[in-house]
Amino acid sequence: MTASGILFGVGVGPGDPQLLTLKACEVIGSVDVLAYPVNGSGISYARSIAANVIPDGADELAIHVPMKVERGPARDAYDSAAKTISDHLGEGRSVAYLCVGDPLFYGSFMYLAARLGGDHVVEVVPGVTSMSACAARTKTPLGGRNDILSVVPATLDGDALATAIAEADTAVIIKVGRHFGKIRDVLRDAGLMGSAVILESATGEDERIIPLEEAGEGDAPYFSTILVRRGELS
Amino acid sequence: MTASGILFGVGVGPGDPQLLTLKACEVIGSVDVLAYPVNGSGISYARSIAANVIPDGADELAIHVPMKVERGPARDAYDSAAKTISDHLGEGRSVAYLCVGDPLFYGSFMYLAARLGGDHVVEVVPGVTSMSACAARTKTPLGGRNDILSVVPATLDGDALATAIAEADTAVIIKVGRHFGKIRDVLRDAGLMGSAVILESATGEDERIIPLEEAGEGDAPYFSTILVRRGELS
Repeated sequence: MTASGILFGVGVGPGDPQLLTLKACEVIGSVDVLAYPVNGSGISYARSIAANVIPDGADELAIHVPMKVERGPARDAYDSAAKTISDHLGEGRSVAYLCVGDPLFYGSFMYLAARLGGDHVVEVVPGVTSMSACAARTKTPLGGRNDILSVVPATLDGDALATAIAEADTAVIIKVGRHFGKIRDVLRDAGLMGSAVILESATGEDERIIPLEEAGEGDAPYFSTILVRRGELS
Repeated sequence: MTASGILFGVGVGPGDPQLLTLKACEVIGSVDVLAYPVNGSGISYARSIAANVIPDGADELAIHVPMKVERGPARDAYDSAAKTISDHLGEGRSVAYLCVGDPLFYGSFMYLAARLGGDHVVEVVPGVTSMSACAARTKTPLGGRNDILSVVPATLDGDALATAIAEADTAVIIKVGRHFGKIRDVLRDAGLMGSAVILESATGEDERIIPLEEAGEGDAPYFSTILVRRGELS
């Protein structure tokens, strides 16, 4: 009988390959199978961040998860990926699933872990989040002393966004994409346009950082983040 | 004339030395002066996490910041430390200030950066937060899809805590320490005791993880974190 392999959720950080942790490098270099999500064009940002430390000839498993509002296609994709990964684990092969940022910070790993955690050993290697990268690149404190920091998906409706942002000293609005117009309205109404900056691929090769007041009206990429800092240091 | 040195704020991660990033290792190994906060006993958790990669004979600068409710002593300590660091930078020496977790996530680096950023070049090397470490060790999603994640200092009053926790799918309550009793009351009133876990030194040598319902009545260490997860995956 073969011992079951371990499933690792590995955070590869926000974009700069130098922001991988020593542990992520070790796990990536030693597992039997490397899995990662790919977009509709077959490109994996997670894999590209880790490329320098992926061994030649590694056994790789690209997982396509449709990015749609309806959940059915994504659920089917996770079910199918979980089945493939489960087969590897059951035959004693360890699998690392690479995640941009941190595996449990708005990533896809949690959906695989929910399907596989009952039957297999799961370990999470935390990573540097895109949120920390945005803060670092703009030198914006995420929080200090008595500050409340809130992470708010742009997919919420305008009222919910306005409430969440009003009560936070720092708000990190993620998944901006096609919700950019709505977010601008909320921030304009709150008088916070001058306290906000939009970032794309922070620390990565294609990094863009624009104060919100100078950003164009067009849609922002899905993975853009808006950082709003209201609090003062004391 | 000597070029001014760079001040680096370097996140060393939550406790496991393997959670340092490659970039943190590189900066720590190459700067002229290594600074870090020490507690009242002269111990630096940040330094201990990075100990493996600190070069022999490094020029070290321990900075004692009083942990008191009144801000005067801390302000004086930051003023004094900033003066010493400024002298190093002005003479062309680079300085890395080591921070547990991430430098801009409820750390002391922002107070030094606020004092030194005007006259000197500051760079931030983001790190893995204690929040991500707590999530990883308990396999608790910090957020997914439409979830709101809020980070809430335990120093807030009970009503403010209750409001912040009520509106979050995941709440991360930091700096628990002597506020443990108050937090328990808030979580008990909200019916969330069964959804909460308290962690100390997550991923570190002295890690402790206890479901809140099983935790004793005594005070928790200052650096404890309580993770409350209300949201369901979908």
